[in-house]
Amino acid sequence: MKKEIQVGIVQLAIDADVQHNRARLAQQIEHCAAQGAQLVVLQELHDSLYFCQTEHTEMFDYAHPIPGEATEFYAAVAKRLHIVLLTSLFEKRAPGLYHNTAVVFDSDGSIAGKYRKMHIPDDPAYYEKFYFTPGDLGFQPIETSVGKLGVLVCWDQWYPEAARLMAMNGADLLIYPTAIGWESSDSAEEKERQRSAWQIAQRAHAVSNGLPVIAINRVGVEADPSGATKGIRFWGTSFVAGPQGEILAQASDSEEETMIVSVSLERSEQVRRIWPFFRDRRIDAYGDIVKRYGNN
Amino acid sequence: MKKEIQVGIVQLAIDADVQHNRARLAQQIEHCAAQGAQLVVLQELHDSLYFCQTEHTEMFDYAHPIPGEATEFYAAVAKRLHIVLLTSLFEKRAPGLYHNTAVVFDSDGSIAGKYRKMHIPDDPAYYEKFYFTPGDLGFQPIETSVGKLGVLVCWDQWYPEAARLMAMNGADLLIYPTAIGWESSDSAEEKERQRSAWQIAQRAHAVSNGLPVIAINRVGVEADPSGATKGIRFWGTSFVAGPQGEILAQASDSEEETMIVSVSLERSEQVRRIWPFFRDRRIDAYGDIVKRYGNN
Repeated sequence: MKKEIQVGIVQLAIDADVQHNRARLAQQIEHCAAQGAQLVVLQELHDSLYFCQTEHTEMFDYAHPIPGEATEFYAAVAKRLHIVLLTSLFEKRAPGLYHNTAVVFDSDGSIAGKYRKMHIPDDPAYYEKFYFTPGDLGFQPIETSVGKLGVLVCWDQWYPEAARLMAMNGADLLIYPTAIGWESSDSAEEKERQRSAWQIAQRAHAVSNGLPVIAINRVGVEADPSGATKGIRFWGTSFVAGPQGEILAQASDSEEETMIVSVSLERSEQVRRIWPFFRDRRIDAYGDIVKRYGNN
Repeated sequence: MKKEIQVGIVQLAIDADVQHNRARLAQQIEHCAAQGAQLVVLQELHDSLYFCQTEHTEMFDYAHPIPGEATEFYAAVAKRLHIVLLTSLFEKRAPGLYHNTAVVFDSDGSIAGKYRKMHIPDDPAYYEKFYFTPGDLGFQPIETSVGKLGVLVCWDQWYPEAARLMAMNGADLLIYPTAIGWESSDSAEEKERQRSAWQIAQRAHAVSNGLPVIAINRVGVEADPSGATKGIRFWGTSFVAGPQGEILAQASDSEEETMIVSVSLERSEQVRRIWPFFRDRRIDAYGDIVKRYGNN
């Protein structure tokens, strides 16, 4: 494990042209590498528009096997630039069986590991349960040359159980590729409560587990093809928090942005010495966590 | 369950005279009741100085059986003012067996229930493992005439498992009586990180569980009887957050303060409809939460 890593964070607006998106992503990844990034992290489902605003079977054409066309593209980028690269892809596992899958490439271009999104949302304009089967790989960090990456995806960010299990399984940091935004009919106050809740929940994972947390969100407005809503304005605000939940860097809520952030993987040790939350967990009293809800 | 409750929050500096502290607390509770409070919540171990700064057997004299002298005093206050009252007491269960116990009185003066602090800290100036046996009552909300109170205490606030289990067991809100402060040798930046982490962790419990959260902290400086440290400056900042983690009210970080805050127990329903985190918990994949740590 390195003591301090330079992390490149790419927050982009995406359009309907997959090849164009990939080319723009590769350009920003290269920009990060040129500035010394050792790890570059991309937002959720970065290759395409956020297609889950409607339920249409032709959207499954965006999916690819892993390994396959998409991983070959990103493997080559990682190898050429000699960086660890976190991508977020639409995985075709079998006909009629698809996942929302993060794939991590090591700096030699090999696949270091993958994580299949475990918690799948479904609410107006985010019809993910139609597209993605919930993950079956559990909460295992991905071992790379820069450290053990606790990769989780978007909706997972609301679940302290996921963050805890990643930390208990040895993650050096948590990383959340995300695609979250506002519906235009919400009030300004409600929008701010949502974005703030989103950030607080993830900063708290840093606090509870004494780990840095990185969130990468998309930005820009994407129309609803059905016209049922006014589309989603993705709120950007990609950020990095240290192991006390303190904000180390934060991107714009409306513009594309690429940031290089220095993240210490050593400070966790110091923070956990004085906040030894793992020491005092009441594992004798947590058994009901695996229940659906209380006693009914 | 009431739809909206008026909560009185009493943040005080405490001195060595227990009778004097009780009289001042009763005065503030009465002040809350006069302003319409239906529930009044007190800070952790409010009857005495925070005696855990050192380890001395004579400190066990502060403890009382439950029911006993302390509960008789507060039961009478609750009954007289016809309010639900949350107290935090040093419980003598048997010679050599003590707990840090929150006792809730209903508005008729009866004991509605008690909670024994489950997670016990131990770090310089907070030698609680010497004094308190970890609780054995689990994470059960206390049923009262104003709702089911998810009472947790101080160090519990760093554990998302505790908040989750209280919520799953039907709590209408979470309440954390607390005694936390700064050590003088920390830098201003470190102090701010600590206070911010403390607040974020609790606001995130509101977010993850779609519940209001109330934290009541003591304030003022208490000397270290051993002289080993410069004592603790308790950072006050008692607050109430709504079910999206939004701050509804916040007290001073250095002054005594009594606040009346209106808390909706109805908004949780609306928030959970659009953020249905309980719907998607992966209870098939959380089993390792009861492990101490990963696979080693």
